[in-house]
Amino acid sequence: MPKSGRATITDVAARAGVSKTAVSKVLNGTGSISTATRDRVLQAARDLHWQPSAHAVALRRARSQTVALVLNRHEAPPAVSATTAELITGIETTLSSRGYGLLLHLVDQPPGAESEIYRRLVDAGRVDGAILTDSVIGDTRPALLRELGLPAVLVGTPDGDDPIPHVRTDPRPAIDQAVDHLLGLGHRRLGFIGGPATRVQAVRRREAFEASVRDHGLELGPMVSTSYSGTASEQVTREVLTAPDRPTALLYGNDTMAIAGIKAARDLGLRTPGDVSVIGAEGQSVGQWIDPPLTTVQRNVVLRGRVAAQLLLQELGIEVDEVRWATDEELLVRASTAPPPTS
Amino acid sequence: MPKSGRATITDVAARAGVSKTAVSKVLNGTGSISTATRDRVLQAARDLHWQPSAHAVALRRARSQTVALVLNRHEAPPAVSATTAELITGIETTLSSRGYGLLLHLVDQPPGAESEIYRRLVDAGRVDGAILTDSVIGDTRPALLRELGLPAVLVGTPDGDDPIPHVRTDPRPAIDQAVDHLLGLGHRRLGFIGGPATRVQAVRRREAFEASVRDHGLELGPMVSTSYSGTASEQVTREVLTAPDRPTALLYGNDTMAIAGIKAARDLGLRTPGDVSVIGAEGQSVGQWIDPPLTTVQRNVVLRGRVAAQLLLQELGIEVDEVRWATDEELLVRASTAPPPTS
Repeated sequence: MPKSGRATITDVAARAGVSKTAVSKVLNGTGSISTATRDRVLQAARDLHWQPSAHAVALRRARSQTVALVLNRHEAPPAVSATTAELITGIETTLSSRGYGLLLHLVDQPPGAESEIYRRLVDAGRVDGAILTDSVIGDTRPALLRELGLPAVLVGTPDGDDPIPHVRTDPRPAIDQAVDHLLGLGHRRLGFIGGPATRVQAVRRREAFEASVRDHGLELGPMVSTSYSGTASEQVTREVLTAPDRPTALLYGNDTMAIAGIKAARDLGLRTPGDVSVIGAEGQSVGQWIDPPLTTVQRNVVLRGRVAAQLLLQELGIEVDEVRWATDEELLVRASTAPPPTS
Repeated sequence: MPKSGRATITDVAARAGVSKTAVSKVLNGTGSISTATRDRVLQAARDLHWQPSAHAVALRRARSQTVALVLNRHEAPPAVSATTAELITGIETTLSSRGYGLLLHLVDQPPGAESEIYRRLVDAGRVDGAILTDSVIGDTRPALLRELGLPAVLVGTPDGDDPIPHVRTDPRPAIDQAVDHLLGLGHRRLGFIGGPATRVQAVRRREAFEASVRDHGLELGPMVSTSYSGTASEQVTREVLTAPDRPTALLYGNDTMAIAGIKAARDLGLRTPGDVSVIGAEGQSVGQWIDPPLTTVQRNVVLRGRVAAQLLLQELGIEVDEVRWATDEELLVRASTAPPPTS
């Protein structure tokens, strides 16, 4: 333990049983050092709650010109989906125009377990900032990154009133468009099959749907939260469509879920849109070629990525074009929605 | 110009008009330096054909623990597609198990223009190695990376007999499976709508198809090379299906092209598989939910990414599990193929 209140690099070296030079190499990410020594030094630094000086932090930051994107694949197996791919395109295009690189990390553990990765990235001075996605209820990452002193932005809606800079979309306007569209076609019983109840965005979207249906003076139909996968959606859709008093229209959490839902209906002998209307979310390009072409709530995920990168560069004190962001969601009507069956 | 045959760091400093310390900072990527100075130093180093010493290179390599993936989005607008996303998943999972990070770069220019990016990455000591994808005819990248001294591997087939370590798949066995399958159903006139003639993999696949059809004693049907996009495929398919003597079955370069091809047929009043059988390539998960479910040549792109990362770690002198790779392509028969119409 250090004698004074604050640990120094000498204390870290003593605790790790290495030279000050070795500690310096590890903390500055310079020179050659074994992984074992590196781990011992970082552990000692953590044990002693060692904080690098502001000058050291600034030096390291000035150097890395790299931003981290840590993706969690704990809940949905394809860690990097087509949508994440669009997000990466937007982020990287903006970063590279300023000479910044994007360091990608995948995590296979529950969202909280990402913290170790961020600690290591900061300790090694490998990144100047981080972009977060897929906020969860009770998300601890924004507070952790503030504690680590690593600038960060979130693509999505923060949990509670967390002050992290973010690229948020209010789901209500596009949900209203979808509900208006279905009511205009004559539907009166709408179901909702959305993403998991652990995800902030999925919860906000479900709440928006509930509010929209109620504000239109309708009863709520079946509401299910499940994983963002086609397999989960296929099964849940089958249950919803075989239960009594089935809905005549379904809103989904993404396009893959909607396309799998159409298959589940087809397997039950129900046609889309004749028997069940279906609305997806995302606006994947494949939706325009399938039969029937998919009505969906489009998003501009590339734009989200661009705006997130601009916000982060701003946080890093880099001059960027004026950041404009309102919303990117809009109902795109194709042929998977039609009047309900006359019964 | 240096007096002796080989430029030194002193020559570089003189030409750039900065101190040796500044040159060292730039070349080692340490300390804080303005972008203008950095560019001047790197330009001077290039002008003088300055080569860092092996020791300096080793030092820099030992430090970055980062690998570059440079993706070209010049030919196909969605730079990071669902398939690339799978590749990234495989690469990153393997790298991160060894404490390596993945630095992602997108390029919006013709394949040759990537060279500037690699030069900068090497000059700044930001990466220890690189993973290449989408080899093109006359690809200059492998030779460039050897010249720069940056270890690299290619996911795919090298152009000509370039010695770059690679993860190659011989397209012939799976093409034979597809052709056998169609002939077994009674088809005699097969068409091929593949990727662009600039891409090595697309050319090898087309050659494999030609050879397979000829070896089966059949005449070749229409053969088209186009971009790997649904939009291009939709248009080309319309042309192929409205020309005289239309094929009864079509093989495509990827699943998106196949799904768009089915739509083009549908718009012409032709049913799949009743009037035209269709086979995709990739095995995207959406293929199982569409109507009709897509027969396709599956690939395991996550595995390709894993193997590529293993090969690169090996190149970097890091001990890895034994690298096993044979092929990952296999015909997956679903419902988009059936006997041809009896006419």
